[in-house]
Amino acid sequence: MASEKLTINADRLVRRIAELAEYGKTAGGGVDRPAFSEADVEARRYMMNLMRHAGLNVRVDPVGNIFGRREGSVAATGTILFGSHIDTVPDGGAYDGSLGSLAAVEVAHTLTEAGYRSRHPLEVVVWCDEENGLTGSRGYVGELSQDDVDEVGPDGVRLSEKIRRIGGDPTRVAEATPQPGSVTAYVELHVEQGAVLDSHGINIGVVEGFVGIDQYDVTITGVPNHAGTTPMDQRINALLPAAELVLAVDRIVRAIPGGQVGTVGSFDVSPGAPNVIPGEVTLTVELRDMDTAKLQPIWQSIHFQLEEICARYGASVTARGRQSVAGIPTDSRLRDIISATAEGLGLATRLLPSGAGHDAQKLARICPTGMIFVPSVAGVSHSPREFTQPEDVAHGANVLLGSVLRIDGW
Amino acid sequence: MASEKLTINADRLVRRIAELAEYGKTAGGGVDRPAFSEADVEARRYMMNLMRHAGLNVRVDPVGNIFGRREGSVAATGTILFGSHIDTVPDGGAYDGSLGSLAAVEVAHTLTEAGYRSRHPLEVVVWCDEENGLTGSRGYVGELSQDDVDEVGPDGVRLSEKIRRIGGDPTRVAEATPQPGSVTAYVELHVEQGAVLDSHGINIGVVEGFVGIDQYDVTITGVPNHAGTTPMDQRINALLPAAELVLAVDRIVRAIPGGQVGTVGSFDVSPGAPNVIPGEVTLTVELRDMDTAKLQPIWQSIHFQLEEICARYGASVTARGRQSVAGIPTDSRLRDIISATAEGLGLATRLLPSGAGHDAQKLARICPTGMIFVPSVAGVSHSPREFTQPEDVAHGANVLLGSVLRIDGW
Repeated sequence: MASEKLTINADRLVRRIAELAEYGKTAGGGVDRPAFSEADVEARRYMMNLMRHAGLNVRVDPVGNIFGRREGSVAATGTILFGSHIDTVPDGGAYDGSLGSLAAVEVAHTLTEAGYRSRHPLEVVVWCDEENGLTGSRGYVGELSQDDVDEVGPDGVRLSEKIRRIGGDPTRVAEATPQPGSVTAYVELHVEQGAVLDSHGINIGVVEGFVGIDQYDVTITGVPNHAGTTPMDQRINALLPAAELVLAVDRIVRAIPGGQVGTVGSFDVSPGAPNVIPGEVTLTVELRDMDTAKLQPIWQSIHFQLEEICARYGASVTARGRQSVAGIPTDSRLRDIISATAEGLGLATRLLPSGAGHDAQKLARICPTGMIFVPSVAGVSHSPREFTQPEDVAHGANVLLGSVLRIDGW
Repeated sequence: MASEKLTINADRLVRRIAELAEYGKTAGGGVDRPAFSEADVEARRYMMNLMRHAGLNVRVDPVGNIFGRREGSVAATGTILFGSHIDTVPDGGAYDGSLGSLAAVEVAHTLTEAGYRSRHPLEVVVWCDEENGLTGSRGYVGELSQDDVDEVGPDGVRLSEKIRRIGGDPTRVAEATPQPGSVTAYVELHVEQGAVLDSHGINIGVVEGFVGIDQYDVTITGVPNHAGTTPMDQRINALLPAAELVLAVDRIVRAIPGGQVGTVGSFDVSPGAPNVIPGEVTLTVELRDMDTAKLQPIWQSIHFQLEEICARYGASVTARGRQSVAGIPTDSRLRDIISATAEGLGLATRLLPSGAGHDAQKLARICPTGMIFVPSVAGVSHSPREFTQPEDVAHGANVLLGSVLRIDGW
């Protein structure tokens, strides 16, 4: 197949990553482009222009997602969808979702330049507002409720108003969802946001799935007291059992073979004055693993320790679930296609879970979904310092191109 | 001596504690009477009326301290000074400094009613603004600088303006200091604010001195990273060494015989999100002991552990002194007088350090100083729930009375 010899224009793609980073550029070299900001609106306009230039028909769906479509040659086949997002966290970087979004446009542009006629319709997508909870992809898969749309954000602005700001129609959000079976596959290229690929010298990560996440809120209560007048043997210092718990979480999670992670990330001590014995600590325990079933036994082990520790200190404790997101695997055929494509290009691959949230994890609930990672240097992400080497950008885009072409054979 | 048979009017004293608690009373039964507030100004007026009623000549010194004076029978003898403070922490209680202040007025009132003529002049004092750093007593001992007087507080108001509000004269603060040798003794009665007396069933605490306090600021720095994408073996989680330090401080302080205390009271974790590995922890270590010389070796032991712990985790650490207050003993003759007086009344006594700050610790720098503690139920203080049993209130005031009479024999 001649199409197997197609390659994307790496110089153009790398140049466009720099161009897109101008929208919301900060003095410190970062990109500050939260969804719905003026910078986001301008960057979306830039993306729509690139899509048109790539020969795509552009539309904005009711949620505010941007689609650029190329029709296929065979009637009544499902769409091959690929893309990512371009919004950033405050003071983020130039790669994150931008790399995958621009690579998707580049793939379409390459096919158009080559005069390649796909069997399936192809759609490049830029999901809106990924960073605040996958708003665009949730809307697309039908998980955005009227309550969500009416909700007033921390900035005091209703989501519906923000959706209007980017050309969506919040009264028609329900219409954003595609017909069942109308999407043949979704493939997303994204930077890893971790250091597994970079530290092992691997070119391409083949995402095996999206990890399950269980979060718990824990409150440990002792007795706040004057640190000068309360002898050591008359204290119930909430910070002591909390400190033991932090170490126990780390020990328990590491003791089991596998890739699970466990983190105490939020940890608030009250009253928090140098001369007052801590009376209360509120903290979170977060557990993640590809195998959601593995999380509950780990929590049970942590909880057992927590009760024992607090009893030993005479502190009281409450623990309750805060959030639970089931893990979901990617499509096995798409994993094979991505691996085969990368290996055909002579690239080293590794199967790995996605520990972070991505639009793809929402798409996986309605259609076969695959995800390609490229290395993040030193695993840095959500930072002005996030960086992916130009050759890795090109490798990722070529794997995306090759995968789309292979899927087109379905 | 007939005077030895004098006893204070316990009913009157207990009633006045309730009356004074009306100034700044909160809906929750607490007392919210910060220094210089409207409630404080009115409570000071109430105290000055009580002083006049007790036959005292009332004046407000340039700092804003209230003095009520009774002349003595022997010319050129030094003043016996006794009292406490009536300002409270926000949402504090009815006892704290109020008990000692009202007991001092009660002692004077009892002597006046009995027609007792002291050899020494007697002065009852109500120090201003104890809770924000011993402002009144610092002014009295000459430690309040012009900079302090000019300083704008967290409320945006200059201390000088507040001093004017309560009848002081901030331009004459230097004149507040007594002539050297003009104060024969200072005695303060106060609630313990700890649970040593209450838990051991002791009536009277004889304060051996004011503890030395060393405070340190510690910052432990790791690498903040995504809790989902960073494997356990690639983390430098600042919270882990910080948790080990918390436990080490407790272990080291307890391992040494003696009454020293050590506390990690302030503990801030950043960035502090459930899904981010903690990158930095800032915390305080506070050490207190009567013997200031004991504190440095304890810190050295903690610091050694801190370096070892952080090196093991690959975290970096800085530690620096934040505050150091030298301990100071009370006057041994006054300790003997207080003990003998209490024992003469059939009360159980115990020598103990004052772990909290008091006006008396400032007075100890310029004159012989003694301090009497009465039990705080369950050690609760700075709280609407602080409470001292009426019989303990009476015991404390009678020990103050007897001690003043014995000092008058000097």
